[in-house]
Amino acid sequence: MVAAMLSSALPTFADVEAAARRLAGHAVLTPLLESPLLNDRLGGRLLVKAEVLQRTGSFKFRGAFNRISLIPEAERPRGVVAFSSGNHAQGVAAAARFLGIPATIVMPSDAPAIKVANTREWGARVVLYDRWKEDREAIGAGISAETGATLVRPYDDPYIMAGQGTIGLELADQAGVIGARLDAVLAPCGGGGMISGIALAIAARCPGTRVYAVEPAGFDDTTRSLAAGERLSNAAGASSFCDALLAPMPGELTFAVNSTHLAGGVAVTDAEVATAMAVARDHFKLVVEPGGAVALAAVMSGKISIAGKTMAVVCSGGNVDPEVYAQALAGAR
Amino acid sequence: MVAAMLSSALPTFADVEAAARRLAGHAVLTPLLESPLLNDRLGGRLLVKAEVLQRTGSFKFRGAFNRISLIPEAERPRGVVAFSSGNHAQGVAAAARFLGIPATIVMPSDAPAIKVANTREWGARVVLYDRWKEDREAIGAGISAETGATLVRPYDDPYIMAGQGTIGLELADQAGVIGARLDAVLAPCGGGGMISGIALAIAARCPGTRVYAVEPAGFDDTTRSLAAGERLSNAAGASSFCDALLAPMPGELTFAVNSTHLAGGVAVTDAEVATAMAVARDHFKLVVEPGGAVALAAVMSGKISIAGKTMAVVCSGGNVDPEVYAQALAGAR
Repeated sequence: MVAAMLSSALPTFADVEAAARRLAGHAVLTPLLESPLLNDRLGGRLLVKAEVLQRTGSFKFRGAFNRISLIPEAERPRGVVAFSSGNHAQGVAAAARFLGIPATIVMPSDAPAIKVANTREWGARVVLYDRWKEDREAIGAGISAETGATLVRPYDDPYIMAGQGTIGLELADQAGVIGARLDAVLAPCGGGGMISGIALAIAARCPGTRVYAVEPAGFDDTTRSLAAGERLSNAAGASSFCDALLAPMPGELTFAVNSTHLAGGVAVTDAEVATAMAVARDHFKLVVEPGGAVALAAVMSGKISIAGKTMAVVCSGGNVDPEVYAQALAGAR
Repeated sequence: MVAAMLSSALPTFADVEAAARRLAGHAVLTPLLESPLLNDRLGGRLLVKAEVLQRTGSFKFRGAFNRISLIPEAERPRGVVAFSSGNHAQGVAAAARFLGIPATIVMPSDAPAIKVANTREWGARVVLYDRWKEDREAIGAGISAETGATLVRPYDDPYIMAGQGTIGLELADQAGVIGARLDAVLAPCGGGGMISGIALAIAARCPGTRVYAVEPAGFDDTTRSLAAGERLSNAAGASSFCDALLAPMPGELTFAVNSTHLAGGVAVTDAEVATAMAVARDHFKLVVEPGGAVALAAVMSGKISIAGKTMAVVCSGGNVDPEVYAQALAGAR
């Protein structure tokens, strides 16, 4: 029913497995970490998928590399174009460089400086736009029409979703090795690409494991959409320092997968995120950016109770400006 | 010649291999990370062994677990005792807990609060002493004599050295997988346990690779001892925020190995270490404590030139008080 209305085919678990084969030797197989002392305090078993250690400092490299590697040889010289608040930008820029393809990235002018600088350093051309006044999709589409560059969407693309889903595949394998039976998997959710891919992998590999989307308060469009059974937008005027998770509404393809596979969603405050960033620093020795820490925040805040359970959270990115990082940690309780 | 004068047998590469078998499934096989953007800037290939992700947040768990697992069943109820500024304390406490053995740890009263708190949380009894007035070896030996507890030395013990050496074994394997031929390996050096074990592994697995000890300025006893061909002490009165690396002079066993196997040593300033901590945060998303960052500092400062070369550095620990961490990063240039 839903699939018939979609503009593109939905990815399947086979697409996630194919993505894993393409990514082998290119993406980092990020470790699954655990702190026995923190487990003691929580009264449960918490596993952290350290995706901040991924190439370019976030999970976005996975989807970008999977998508770009499928561009036919003849179309590659015309390049790729992408719009992104930063992590997808770096993922696309790095994947394009590894594959020898020119990249243009449309970024909001208020994106973290470290994300803009790194995108340029990967060799991409950066075009800045005003997040509140201009339409990044229109700008990206315009560049694509002018130059013939392939548009690499941040989440609403079956191959992007499948690429991000390799996180779930690794997670299932790694949990198996240490004998952990996962009650739940939690991952950050902006447009819903990563969580949808993970949900496909977990449904196939760990049936019975519940998968939750975690969002910043005020940007809980997926949480509300799941409850309503239809795609809802975020109200205007909200703000959050989780710059990676400010998509206005769930994607078409991502929501089709998520509405079938997710157990639900939960929203966390910036204060809860700051605490999670401090926990990541102290217990896992990881630098996690605000948007990358929301799933850990959902557990640490008790919004998803881990007592007596085994749960995995994805810490999805670590590209945070030093000043923002220092301020968040200084304010963490 | 040297061996005849020693109070205990020197470890060999076979001891490192045996330690690796004992640690399998207990220690974390820490990842070897790389940043292509940083490589571009350095004009060389830098590999980072992320030992901050080790159980207890530092490499010390390896040696402690290897040593303690060799205590005969009949002696285990009498427990273990160790003296340490913090990372060895946590390593011993955690290894003892996993093996079901009571632990007493003698720690300096000015050790980082996070290290003291974690050591207690691992279930160990902590005895504090004054770093500048009391002799920790005497206190440890006294407790051992009273209780019959096995003294687990921080570095001058062949099984501790062999346990830490498993870092070198993993490093050689991981470099091989990515096709990296190592020109040099750099690791932090306090008493010299870790660097000696690594040197044994690298000599066996990567002959021709140079191994360097890196120390804080003012505590460069191993660097000077290597140059002099005999064990020299540090002058009194020096200070450094690298609390993990303040041993007064090279160990007897460690120096016997290091004087044979190391290419040399180098000292770095606290300012250079702070810069390296910021590089670890920005490029590798790792929280590295001062003493854990000295090897990275040797490369970033140019004191060991990486231009045109491939080098691995061990980031050996991440147990830093939040205030010290924030101050170091705020002052980093």
